[in-house]
Amino acid sequence: MENNLSPLTIAQHARTASLALQAVPAAMRHRVLITAATLLQRRKKDILAADTADVHRARHKVSPAFINRLTLNEKRFSEMIAAIRAIARQKDPLGEVIERRKIKNGVVLKKVRVSIGVLFIIYEARPHVTADAAALALRAGNAVILKGGSEARNTNRLIAQCFQQALKSAGLPLHAAQFIDTADRTVVKKLLKCADDIDLVIPRGGYGLVKWVRKESHIPSLSHAEGLDHTYVDASADIPLAIKVIVNAKTSFPAACNSLDHLLVHERIAQKLLPPLQTALVPYGVELRGDAKARKIINVKAATMQDWDTEYLSLTMGIKIVPNVDEATAHINAHGSKHSESIIARDKKTIALFKKNVDAAGIFVNCSTRLHDGGVFGLGAEMGINTGKLHARGPVGAKELTTYKWIAEGNGQTR
Amino acid sequence: MENNLSPLTIAQHARTASLALQAVPAAMRHRVLITAATLLQRRKKDILAADTADVHRARHKVSPAFINRLTLNEKRFSEMIAAIRAIARQKDPLGEVIERRKIKNGVVLKKVRVSIGVLFIIYEARPHVTADAAALALRAGNAVILKGGSEARNTNRLIAQCFQQALKSAGLPLHAAQFIDTADRTVVKKLLKCADDIDLVIPRGGYGLVKWVRKESHIPSLSHAEGLDHTYVDASADIPLAIKVIVNAKTSFPAACNSLDHLLVHERIAQKLLPPLQTALVPYGVELRGDAKARKIINVKAATMQDWDTEYLSLTMGIKIVPNVDEATAHINAHGSKHSESIIARDKKTIALFKKNVDAAGIFVNCSTRLHDGGVFGLGAEMGINTGKLHARGPVGAKELTTYKWIAEGNGQTR
Repeated sequence: MENNLSPLTIAQHARTASLALQAVPAAMRHRVLITAATLLQRRKKDILAADTADVHRARHKVSPAFINRLTLNEKRFSEMIAAIRAIARQKDPLGEVIERRKIKNGVVLKKVRVSIGVLFIIYEARPHVTADAAALALRAGNAVILKGGSEARNTNRLIAQCFQQALKSAGLPLHAAQFIDTADRTVVKKLLKCADDIDLVIPRGGYGLVKWVRKESHIPSLSHAEGLDHTYVDASADIPLAIKVIVNAKTSFPAACNSLDHLLVHERIAQKLLPPLQTALVPYGVELRGDAKARKIINVKAATMQDWDTEYLSLTMGIKIVPNVDEATAHINAHGSKHSESIIARDKKTIALFKKNVDAAGIFVNCSTRLHDGGVFGLGAEMGINTGKLHARGPVGAKELTTYKWIAEGNGQTR
Repeated sequence: MENNLSPLTIAQHARTASLALQAVPAAMRHRVLITAATLLQRRKKDILAADTADVHRARHKVSPAFINRLTLNEKRFSEMIAAIRAIARQKDPLGEVIERRKIKNGVVLKKVRVSIGVLFIIYEARPHVTADAAALALRAGNAVILKGGSEARNTNRLIAQCFQQALKSAGLPLHAAQFIDTADRTVVKKLLKCADDIDLVIPRGGYGLVKWVRKESHIPSLSHAEGLDHTYVDASADIPLAIKVIVNAKTSFPAACNSLDHLLVHERIAQKLLPPLQTALVPYGVELRGDAKARKIINVKAATMQDWDTEYLSLTMGIKIVPNVDEATAHINAHGSKHSESIIARDKKTIALFKKNVDAAGIFVNCSTRLHDGGVFGLGAEMGINTGKLHARGPVGAKELTTYKWIAEGNGQTR
């Protein structure tokens, strides 16, 4: 759609649109989302047909998992619309007075939530991300440049058009949601250099994409590194609860970054936990790899040192026996990727130690790491999960796509 | 002090120390600061003597302004100690529950404030920054690697030693505050690549340093770009108040990034404002450069197009006549550096438009841009001012050196 423009022009148009967007009332941004949802619903048939065509073109070139993500069936379409409406319903994030105080000289100081400005989202061939990203960005008053995987190009184009039409009908600049309709990576590379006009880059996809963006750009980014996640089962754990949570965390979506990779088991509960756990995992075809102590209890492959630094993204799980919560914590802080870490325990002191000392974006106590998700957290959708320490950690929703400015009001104060 | 260690080892030691630091109670971090202040006070004579020697060695190589910043006199020494005590007195930033809600599945979700981890501060030859940076970092539970300008090496070393001694006496690892005692830039370059063990880089100094750090590193950073700051005087302004504020903003510290560079004046007030303003600025030796309309009112040099994109850092000021607040806002958003922007006005609607539409870290209504400072804002001291949009905008104090983690507590929830 924006293919005849140079990358710099795209970025500058986005900047201009972002200034217009932040000046309009919340009700207008809300209306854009509602209108976009209505337009998408109206064009459902065309969009699903475009997706079928995209899938058809890609079918011999990519994996079944890829085709699965590219496919926009009836259910996913409804979920996509529902997500836009949920984001529209959220309280407007802008204008919130986050802090307020009077300083010594009588000046009243306020920290006020404002939009970030211009976002550049690079994602893989998952059409619903076009809608999620546009809705979250616009809800928070940001202009957005969307670059989706080219295999979903036709579907994405129609979805983006609905947002542009919604912007137009509200009298807002179309450039508030630009869609880059090219497979040419040099366009993306050039955009990644437009630091004056792009405030934030969000690579949403595999770790390869994330690393590439970090290499190419000095624009700040939010993204997740790997998702090398652990669950620690303490001696005080409820064993049936542990088995239920582990089976879910490992098997419900093994390719997801919030899926469980390694189990750390307190030595006093290993004997009771591991045999029934192994039995419970059999129907899912999970391959277990244990350390020497685990292999004395259940008959599994040996884990190598390399295993502890591996995010499997598949039905493999490592098992290590640890003497206490401190060893579990030390192992997690040394080998984890600061994504999603879980403890199954009843002892309150142990839980408190784990919560305090494990360094990760999300800590899950007696529940599955798979809950680490913007939708589950009530954000409507997410731009992804940030495992970096800065700005917003964990799921990135509309509120996380804001910043603040300080407003000082005085009556002639100087320094 | 850490010169015999490799950069990677320094960074890894800092990571280990940061994990120890975040595990201890707030009272211990508080005590470290109080002890450091006491030790500094006790070693005052040695520190001032070291500073005199540093100044002596540098005196023929650098500018008088540089010598001024390098000099640690009695007054500055007291202010340095007072800043540490003020930071120690602040409410502990860690552990605060920023958000709390129960999500649909019954899980209780909390967003809890935690330390960032490892900070790397690179600053120029201003010895008090060693104390400010160490105090702010440790207050917020972060390990810090300090690299000050080598001209202040002897003074910095003694100040850093006091913090290490304070850490030691609290039973905390010395590596929580490491000081890099070398002029060798390759050490800094190598540290800037240690993305696994350093979470945040803060270059505090001129824009040259900031740009160099951004080029060398992919570690997230907080810093200010330039400080190209405006004051807009509306037609509704109180003229004596305007003159007082402008004189202060321009003359009290011209080399500071929060000093005024360009004045934008509403056309209806220019005739009344400019002549007395010019008179008021004469004693300070301010050189004015005006656009064509301003030069019809006062006899000043002509401003060129280049002037509007220049941060003077000296006693020069541009003057431009504008027809209304929207033009002033558009000029600021096009030419400003998102640092400190001010409006002098009485009309509430005009003030509201300016506050909403000007995109900057700090907006100053009827007060001086020079107030944009961590000390003035009540943070005790600051690591600098961030003009980027992410994480923390404006003055960076202890609270801004924190992040959060999500803690989800359930009873067997899965997905």
